[in-house]
Amino acid sequence: MIQKPSIPKGTRDFSPYEMVRRDFIIDTIRQVFRLYGYQPIETPAMENLSTLLGKYGEEGDRLLFRVLNSGDFLSGLDEKDLAGMDPSRISSLICGKGLRYDLTVPFARYVVQHRDQIIFPFKRYQIQPVWRADRPQRGRYREFFQCDADVIGSDSLLNEYELIRIIDDITGRLGIAVTVKINNRKVLAGIAEFIGEAEKITDITTAVDKLEKIGIIGVNEELVARGVSHEAIGKLQPIIELEGAVEEKLGKLDMILQESAVGKKGLDELRTLFSYIQADKPCCEIEMDITLARGLNYYTGAIIEVKSKDVSIGSVCGGGRYDNLTGVFGMDGISGVGISFGADRIYDVMNQLNLFEDQVHESPQILIVNFGEEEAKHAIVLRNRLNKISISCELYPDSVRLKKQIAYADARNIPFVVMAGDEEIKNKVVTLKIMSTSEQKKMSESELIEFMKSGSFSGD
Amino acid sequence: MIQKPSIPKGTRDFSPYEMVRRDFIIDTIRQVFRLYGYQPIETPAMENLSTLLGKYGEEGDRLLFRVLNSGDFLSGLDEKDLAGMDPSRISSLICGKGLRYDLTVPFARYVVQHRDQIIFPFKRYQIQPVWRADRPQRGRYREFFQCDADVIGSDSLLNEYELIRIIDDITGRLGIAVTVKINNRKVLAGIAEFIGEAEKITDITTAVDKLEKIGIIGVNEELVARGVSHEAIGKLQPIIELEGAVEEKLGKLDMILQESAVGKKGLDELRTLFSYIQADKPCCEIEMDITLARGLNYYTGAIIEVKSKDVSIGSVCGGGRYDNLTGVFGMDGISGVGISFGADRIYDVMNQLNLFEDQVHESPQILIVNFGEEEAKHAIVLRNRLNKISISCELYPDSVRLKKQIAYADARNIPFVVMAGDEEIKNKVVTLKIMSTSEQKKMSESELIEFMKSGSFSGD
Repeated sequence: MIQKPSIPKGTRDFSPYEMVRRDFIIDTIRQVFRLYGYQPIETPAMENLSTLLGKYGEEGDRLLFRVLNSGDFLSGLDEKDLAGMDPSRISSLICGKGLRYDLTVPFARYVVQHRDQIIFPFKRYQIQPVWRADRPQRGRYREFFQCDADVIGSDSLLNEYELIRIIDDITGRLGIAVTVKINNRKVLAGIAEFIGEAEKITDITTAVDKLEKIGIIGVNEELVARGVSHEAIGKLQPIIELEGAVEEKLGKLDMILQESAVGKKGLDELRTLFSYIQADKPCCEIEMDITLARGLNYYTGAIIEVKSKDVSIGSVCGGGRYDNLTGVFGMDGISGVGISFGADRIYDVMNQLNLFEDQVHESPQILIVNFGEEEAKHAIVLRNRLNKISISCELYPDSVRLKKQIAYADARNIPFVVMAGDEEIKNKVVTLKIMSTSEQKKMSESELIEFMKSGSFSGD
Repeated sequence: MIQKPSIPKGTRDFSPYEMVRRDFIIDTIRQVFRLYGYQPIETPAMENLSTLLGKYGEEGDRLLFRVLNSGDFLSGLDEKDLAGMDPSRISSLICGKGLRYDLTVPFARYVVQHRDQIIFPFKRYQIQPVWRADRPQRGRYREFFQCDADVIGSDSLLNEYELIRIIDDITGRLGIAVTVKINNRKVLAGIAEFIGEAEKITDITTAVDKLEKIGIIGVNEELVARGVSHEAIGKLQPIIELEGAVEEKLGKLDMILQESAVGKKGLDELRTLFSYIQADKPCCEIEMDITLARGLNYYTGAIIEVKSKDVSIGSVCGGGRYDNLTGVFGMDGISGVGISFGADRIYDVMNQLNLFEDQVHESPQILIVNFGEEEAKHAIVLRNRLNKISISCELYPDSVRLKKQIAYADARNIPFVVMAGDEEIKNKVVTLKIMSTSEQKKMSESELIEFMKSGSFSGD
């Protein structure tokens, strides 16, 4: 029976067109990470479920892909276990492994497991796919790549600065204009204290984080719904709407948070971070955004988010400082700070802005025409000679009609076609056809190599 | 409760030390594939089980990792389904997806699914991990990388030649000495015909393939056990033990297989392939090995296997021609030929031979010492300046004791340390310490850059 082939919902095949563009993004990110001294690691696609469960909230647990135990996975069960038909109970009995949901928890697990071999501060990067059983929708996939850089084992704000510099460097190389938004969780805590709702910090930040999406009225409605008092909401208004340059905002917040120890600490951290940024101004726009929270409760210091200035698509990168990520694996007091680039989002931005045009070449530079078995042996030698000096080149494998071979070069966007038939071989020349102009020229192999290296004919 | 972190049996973490070496291997393979005009694709880690099942034999079906359906995976089951407690029946009801087992079947699925967008002949490469629930043992993992290159939609033997050339190029760049063994399935079929056991070809090739492992006596015992007649085994002996250069072997086989149409076709193919190889001799050793079968019944023409000459480790690459791989997905008559490199095996070979030494650098070139917040701002500017010209460089994040920072540079194998304290900043110089000799020298930033670019001090 013939199967109609398909792939699982929410997953994708990447064609050569997409791959060379994606590779360009990932190679650029990797190159910059390494330039700043970050070291690569990789972790297995499957982690023990005990490593993953409980780290991403209830929602996250639900979205984990679970892998069935190998062999007789029912052997540990009796009919009583099955009788209840309780999916979560049965799945925990028949699945011991799950697919990685992000790169942060596997990294924390890695650090604890290999603590004796690691030199701290440990600057690591990791570029791998992650899997989430989310409802697939436009721009949201069940398999996607994350590109993470983290520093663990150092409290210094130079790390936050460095990560911002890396964002500037990567987006600059990719040609994307971005705004980097910066906040500090301690300032958010200070604000919650100041308005008299310290214990409601999660509700407050969750609501305020939506300012851009739902506007100030929406935020206030949500605050009410979450049980924040009207008085507190009133005190919050001028803070949410703070305007001005960084120094100005910090000055105003100094006044507001003068009674909050944690708030003042947060302002100090922001001030130091911005003083580093001032020391060697980056190219991208950097903003202090007091409403930025990123909904992630494990951040304890800096919060960072990067948005495209030209395409409205959510953030292309985000991150922050977390003080005790490895604690859950039994290693306390290790502070970390990290960022994560979304390769798919960056792809979409660059694609929409036509930024790949000049940077990416998916095709070889030359196609050598196949005129038959004997000519092919001659062509082999030429092809090997070109490849040896890194000129990408392919020999058409079948000796079909010239027209078909030229059509292939055209369809594949191969810019040059080289022909060496009987006549040419006898005269020790080749014919070069420039596809864009259809111009043809006879030359020696050495002249061809010269042309390919320099991009012009000698004497031109 | 504190968890002791671990990873699933048969999987691995890759440390920075291993990653930079693995990246070197994979980047080299990728670079050569592209040089020859192969185009990258990627397919999802999860495929529908219907795509995977029945493609790898019974054994393969058993070794597939199955992914539990999301949500209420029991909803389609009633208690009757569960009552039997039959694992294979239940797993097919609760799992619709599996992890990819190799790259060949997903590639075949890809070609059929995207046939309208593909320009044939299609030369694709694919470098991704695969998963097999094999019993883990030394050198065999449940997650490992394959690096595949295939040409589909062309019968020409130039493709086989090109793949051998690629093997030569890649192993040459990596510095591994290898022997490439070549055989042809049609010749094996001809031999089976000649000895009067045409229908026992699988038994014969399976036994003969073990010659190197179990010797001629072992092979003969296995042939007897598999029901091959004594007369046939007698006729097979001189063929198995064929010696001599390629031309000599081919000449002898011409005589032996003169009555077998398929055998003669196989010899023709081998002869043409070797004539291409002769046209521009590769660096590696190339052998015709009439016993090579690789146990894979889907090969229909060339069979290729690559062995390290210096490390006994099985093959580092293998492949062959298959005539109808896409047939199972409803697309007939498309011939393909491909090879697959095992990145893990190559890693082990290179590691054992110390081949990474000069080719791989996992550390940045410079560590800038951190003397405190104000000095750090100065250091930031210098670091950014160095990174801009691609000199990898890190600034130690914390202003701890100099001794500790130097120890970090030492542990990380960072060759140069740059110090710029109060005094140096005032005098517009930096102090460069060469870690290998402990030599120190004061110089301007421009002189430092000059030194880093040229590897020597100006005037030296």
